[in-house]
Formats: sequence, structure tokens, C-alpha cells
Amino acid sequence: MAILYMAEPGSAAQWRQAFHESAPELEFREWPEVGDARDIEYLIAWKAMPRLMAQFPNLSVLYSAGAGVDQFDLSELPEHVSLVRLVDGAMADIMAEYVTFAVLALHRDILTYQNSQRERRWAPLPIIPACERRVGVMGLGNLGQVALQRLQPLGFQLHAWSRSPKAVAGARCYVGNEQLHAFLGQCDILINLLPLTPETTGILNATTLDALPTGAGVVNVGRGAHVIEQDLLAALDTGKVAGAVLDVLDQEPPLPDHPFWRHPRVLLTPHIASNVQVKGAVDVIVRNLHRARSGLPLLNTVHRGKGY
Amino acid sequence: MAILYMAEPGSAAQWRQAFHESAPELEFREWPEVGDARDIEYLIAWKAMPRLMAQFPNLSVLYSAGAGVDQFDLSELPEHVSLVRLVDGAMADIMAEYVTFAVLALHRDILTYQNSQRERRWAPLPIIPACERRVGVMGLGNLGQVALQRLQPLGFQLHAWSRSPKAVAGARCYVGNEQLHAFLGQCDILINLLPLTPETTGILNATTLDALPTGAGVVNVGRGAHVIEQDLLAALDTGKVAGAVLDVLDQEPPLPDHPFWRHPRVLLTPHIASNVQVKGAVDVIVRNLHRARSGLPLLNTVHRGKGY
Repeated sequence: MAILYMAEPGSAAQWRQAFHESAPELEFREWPEVGDARDIEYLIAWKAMPRLMAQFPNLSVLYSAGAGVDQFDLSELPEHVSLVRLVDGAMADIMAEYVTFAVLALHRDILTYQNSQRERRWAPLPIIPACERRVGVMGLGNLGQVALQRLQPLGFQLHAWSRSPKAVAGARCYVGNEQLHAFLGQCDILINLLPLTPETTGILNATTLDALPTGAGVVNVGRGAHVIEQDLLAALDTGKVAGAVLDVLDQEPPLPDHPFWRHPRVLLTPHIASNVQVKGAVDVIVRNLHRARSGLPLLNTVHRGKGY
Repeated sequence: MAILYMAEPGSAAQWRQAFHESAPELEFREWPEVGDARDIEYLIAWKAMPRLMAQFPNLSVLYSAGAGVDQFDLSELPEHVSLVRLVDGAMADIMAEYVTFAVLALHRDILTYQNSQRERRWAPLPIIPACERRVGVMGLGNLGQVALQRLQPLGFQLHAWSRSPKAVAGARCYVGNEQLHAFLGQCDILINLLPLTPETTGILNATTLDALPTGAGVVNVGRGAHVIEQDLLAALDTGKVAGAVLDVLDQEPPLPDHPFWRHPRVLLTPHIASNVQVKGAVDVIVRNLHRARSGLPLLNTVHRGKGY
């Protein structure tokens, strides 16, 4: 029984050590040192790999080394292989930390002040109280819910939108396509934490951005492909969107001539809002080992139809 | 009985309205329309004014339209005139919001990422968990205490330093000059929220900055004169201080050739971290009117000896 690690090589030693402590019965192998491919029952992968099953005939669970699973072609994965996300509490906390930073930066006009600083202008703006600022979160999975919990004590008016009905204390919830525009109209600051699926690809486009209040802020910590980048650029240029904090782009890293590199109203970070935390991730895998032995359903499995 | 408003002219209408609602018996006058100077018992002032008492012989209370009173020469103020700060809960909340932003920006390496963005480099850095980051607050008045309360749920290791012994839940407290260096050695991120007094002027200088851990972040939301700016600049240039978020400077606005305008490791905002909130400030004044009538001591009075 072996687990093959095919994710970030720099973290491999940390994963190996964590498995050694929590599940010594599980042999840890690091790509490309596969050994006998028939031993591999579990895989930790960040990127898709063609002809996965042909290589690992005894694969039982594919663990995604990220919050999402959009990098995998689910149609290539046989039904008997489970697909599991390694999102854990620490990952959600780190994401909420970044979201809090991004919301406060937009709320307190920091991009405007940084532009003033570059122009050597000392130009105070009125302070808007948090209770007059409407903040909306798209996506109410674990990451979205923890982000809302963290934003609540700051005093913002909170709104939330998801595909299926959910209740979140302290936030007004909107459901489905028919309530999307009503939701967007309430978002002075919009945070995207949706999973990337065929339904959500390009969800932030000219039409939906136009539904935001004028001068809105946009935070994208989902996936780059959620945003039609030329539409966001146009909305930034008209002032419909006053500022954007983007941790993900359609292509990462972006090409050198990508307009967001030097856009004065875009704060760009290199996909660091959060990442899989080794300790919590290994904990999920070990708990799933025990659950499988007891015939229980695995934690954090992805619904193939929904894509998350 | 009249109150003379000598602060920000743009907010005068808001103050007038608030007094009209809460204390209609008090006549509100706006500088320079003083009327009969003998009517003036209360003054709301932002800047010092020479020969104050000669102009207003019946002055009873001088209200400072800011969190501090360092702008006034206390020696010019007769003993029978009370000096009162207009700090209130809303002002402390807004300050804590800015402090949270600044701490998260430094904690998550945002200045570094913005420099990378300008250079078109996509360069992720390791994420340091909040529980491994030590954050220290200098000054444990109302503003410092509320800031610590807000930082606590984010999971940082909290430290605090004040002149007189104080206890703050969740923070390790240090007292007086003899514990200053021990405190500074624990500050991966240092926040200055001290009042400006002769003792605290220039408190952040070459010696104290050198006591910080290498690569520390500095947030100044106190007064510009707390910092010897050339020493901070030197510490930024050696890397002793990795980044600074400064809302106050020794001279505001700074001269066009001030090095902080274009410094890649300085985020400069134009004294907007917080400001006096009209509703809360008028509430303090009205409560003091009632307290004076009942012979009770006034709220928020400044101790002349301490200067805060």
C-alpha cells in the first residue's frame, strides 16, 4: 500500500515526515520514483496527468493538492476512483486572512492612496464606516463560510450567493441564477470564492460586473477563469469597478504584456491567498484511510456532477 | 452658553446638526463668527491658538478634535480650563480597522508582492501562519486596547508595551523603559499607538529599531514625531525593517523630496487611520455638560503631567 506524491517538490519532505508520524503503514513515494506502479493506491496531485489509470491500475483515491479540482478532467477518472479535496481548517483560516486583508484594503481606499503616494499627493478621503459598506461573497463552501465568519466582527453588511440554498449567520443569502443580479447589486466589495465548473467559468463578465454598484471593489481568490479579464479591464477603465485585488489569473504567470501587471487599480498577488496545509491535509488522508477500512464514506469527496 | 467650533470647516454642518439634536440649549458657533467672546464656555479645536484665554475669558473646557492633545501647549492653558479628548468607541473601531489592514498587509508580504508586480515578476513566498507571527502594540490606551482585541481572533502572538502596568487579555504585557527592549525583540510587526509626550518623542530611533527582529514591519498610527525618520529610512535600507505602513509623518504633508513618497517599502497614507466621529464626540460633550451640572468629574480629561 503506497501513496505517490506528485505535487510541489519543495514540500515533499514535509509530507513524508507527516505521513511517517501519522500513518507509518503507508509507504510514501515521491514522483518520479514510482517503484512498482501496482502498489500505488493513493495519489496526491496538483496537475492533471494523462492516462492516469493505465499507469496506476490499483488507484483508489486521487487527492487534489489544492482547494479546487478544476485542473482534473473528471471524465477521464473511472467511477471507482474517489476524488478528494484536501481543504482543511487551516487552509480556510489562511484564505480568510487574505480575504480580510483584501476587503480592508478596498474599504479603506488603499489603492487610491498608493496612487497618490506615487504622485506625491497628500489627499485624505472621507472614511466610510464599515456598517455602511456592503460586502458580498460568492461561493458558500467551507472557504466562503469561514471568510464570512471573519468579516462579521468588522461590522460590514454581509451578503452571500451560492448555487444551492444555504444559511449563514449574519449574512443575507441569495440562491441561483435568478438571484445573482440582486446579489451583485448589493456588493460594494465582491469576493469570488466559487469552485470552477462549466457553470461558473466566466461568471464575472461585462453583464455581471455591470450589475455591481458603481465604484465597486472586486476580489478574486477563486480561479482566473471565473473572470473575463478584458471585461474586468473595461470595467476598471470606466470606473464601474474602482479597484481589484486578484490572486489568480487565467494564465499564471501572466504574459509580460498583460495589462494587470502595471494597472494602477489592480493589486496582483501570485496565487498565494492560501494553499494546502500539510498537517491538515495528511490528517484528512489518514482519517479517510480509517473510514475506508470501516466502510464509511470518505471525507471531502468531490461530486462528479457538480464538480466540487 | 456657547460652544465655538474651530476644527475642520467641512464637517461644521454635521456638528451643528448633532448639537441641535442632543443639546439644543447650547449655542453652536463656527469660527470665525465668534459673536460675543464672553459667551464662549466650550471650544472644539484641532490646532493650537495663541493667547486663547485672553480671547475667551469664560472658557471652561477645551475639547481636542483629535485623539491626541500634543498640538496644544499645555503650559499656556490655565489650570481651571479642562482639556478633554474626543476619542470614542467608533474612533477606536476605525483605528483598529486600519491597524488590522496594516498588520495583515505586512504579515502577508503585500509590499513585496507589489514590488514584484511592478517588475512583472510572479514570485510566491512561503505563507507564515499567524500563530508564528509576533505582533506588538505600543500604547495601551483605548485605541491600543481595541486594536489588540481585534487582532486576537486572527491568531497572532500578541505583545503590548505601556508606561504604567496594564493587563490585556491574550497579550503579554511589558512596562516602562526597563522592559522596552525585551518587548521590541518580540515584535515581528510593531504598531505605535502611543500619545505624543516629551517622553515618547523620537521613541522609534536607531537604538530601538535595532532592537526589533531583523525584517520587522513597522506601523505608525501615533504621531510622526514618535519616529526619527532618518533612522527608520536607514533601517529600511539595511533590511532591519522590511516594510513600514505610515499614516503620520513629522511634517504633513511631507515636502516633495521626502524619501518616503517613493520608497518601495513604505506605504504612506495621509493621516486617515481614524478621525473624530461627530456622533460619538458630541455624545462625550453632552455627557460632560450633564456631569458638570451634577458636580461629577468630566470624562476623557487629559492629565497635564502625563500629557494624555
